[in-house]
Amino acid sequence: MNSLVKLNQRIDTANSLVSVGLDSDMRYMPRQFRDDPFPQFAFNRWVIEETRQYVSAFKANMAFYEARGDRGLSELKMTIDYIHERYPDIFTMCDAKRADVGSSNLGYVDAIYDWLGFDAVTLHPYLGRHALQPFLDRADKVSVIVCRTSNPGAREIQDIDVAGRPLWLHLAEKVSKEWNTNENCMMIVGAMEPQEYQQMRGLIGDMTILIPGIGTQGGAIQRIVEAALNSAKRGVLVNSARSIIFADDPSTAAKRLRDDINICRKA
Amino acid sequence: MNSLVKLNQRIDTANSLVSVGLDSDMRYMPRQFRDDPFPQFAFNRWVIEETRQYVSAFKANMAFYEARGDRGLSELKMTIDYIHERYPDIFTMCDAKRADVGSSNLGYVDAIYDWLGFDAVTLHPYLGRHALQPFLDRADKVSVIVCRTSNPGAREIQDIDVAGRPLWLHLAEKVSKEWNTNENCMMIVGAMEPQEYQQMRGLIGDMTILIPGIGTQGGAIQRIVEAALNSAKRGVLVNSARSIIFADDPSTAAKRLRDDINICRKA
Repeated sequence: MNSLVKLNQRIDTANSLVSVGLDSDMRYMPRQFRDDPFPQFAFNRWVIEETRQYVSAFKANMAFYEARGDRGLSELKMTIDYIHERYPDIFTMCDAKRADVGSSNLGYVDAIYDWLGFDAVTLHPYLGRHALQPFLDRADKVSVIVCRTSNPGAREIQDIDVAGRPLWLHLAEKVSKEWNTNENCMMIVGAMEPQEYQQMRGLIGDMTILIPGIGTQGGAIQRIVEAALNSAKRGVLVNSARSIIFADDPSTAAKRLRDDINICRKA
Repeated sequence: MNSLVKLNQRIDTANSLVSVGLDSDMRYMPRQFRDDPFPQFAFNRWVIEETRQYVSAFKANMAFYEARGDRGLSELKMTIDYIHERYPDIFTMCDAKRADVGSSNLGYVDAIYDWLGFDAVTLHPYLGRHALQPFLDRADKVSVIVCRTSNPGAREIQDIDVAGRPLWLHLAEKVSKEWNTNENCMMIVGAMEPQEYQQMRGLIGDMTILIPGIGTQGGAIQRIVEAALNSAKRGVLVNSARSIIFADDPSTAAKRLRDDINICRKA
């Protein structure tokens, strides 16, 4: 089954556009997990159990695992194995922001899709479609292309003017019309103004976008998601990491985000 | 000591602009290494001993190690430890093509600069300077920014017209004038025409560039390196991977590349 089909099925059954970011930074983890022999796995397992009924996806940022070398990588694998065994209908994304040239990408394909077993991976666009072909060729998996990020300074490169519009929008159209031939692409489009999401939606059709880094504040999220929804009132995943996983009560935080978003899906 | 100082000292003592790429793809490795309990480390150790006297740097592409999960990562660490213990004056680059936002980059900084111990890492530019600050702030290490790659399809994004010149050249100037405040940046500028290197050199001053993927053919390399050299007749590292490490005789292949390049430095 194509992983995007799996994602859409889960969105319907869980009635949720929420992705929880397993960004298990050792520095912010509660003490009881830090003392565990497998601290990141122990913490993740707890977060997964607390939040799973409210989410359609888990996204793990590779950097927090690589920071611990081979041990971190092992615990990331334990985490993904745990999700696949117990909750195989939840979509899994590796936020690794990879992209290389030629045969190097095959190494990342092996590592992320096959060894770790993720459904999707995030990818830098700068090397072009041809370079990413080893990812795009995996019709069973999902390539999540970085288009517009929400970090300070994102505009420096991403908003460079290309024939009257920002580079990221030029790229978004390119991905939707030229890179997505297997219908297995998504895009990262970080917190922008609602009207920018509307403009983008007009160019990319019903493709699914991942919106990271918008915390869990209700009103702003509703206006953004409403502008970003596709014709099936899906097409959006909202990822929240710290404000859920490091909340006093991750379960309540995840439920609140799901419910806040769903208000605008019903509207 | 700043790692670029180390690189330049090595370039002078070894009289070499060569970097050997430890892209130890298990599929192409001679059988005697594949059967070793630590196959990538065993192969790398052999390549290092065969080529070390002719090189100023070793570059390892992370993808070939991640493809083997935590085992590959361990063997990459064994490789770098081996180089640092025996040949501490040789510059080491992790070709990981990383870049994320915010605190995620700290994970990669920990992993690549500190846990693995590389002198340098390759970085995607798409998220902008601000996002890369955790790398750029490490004045003891080197950030190698991907500007222009040599893969088929590289032009799709990198040659997008920005006010009359290609995006990569716009970026190259930006890196040299705005990102390189700690004087710890390099750039990847893949196989282009000699006149393009000349044009770039006029914009970036004496910064060091990494030229990957041009094999070991003599004449073409000489014209390119001649055009790319800086005012100190350095400022260039030529990386060659497969055509050296999978040659019947890596030692001879590395020596030939070094000598071919040096002809134009003397000219």
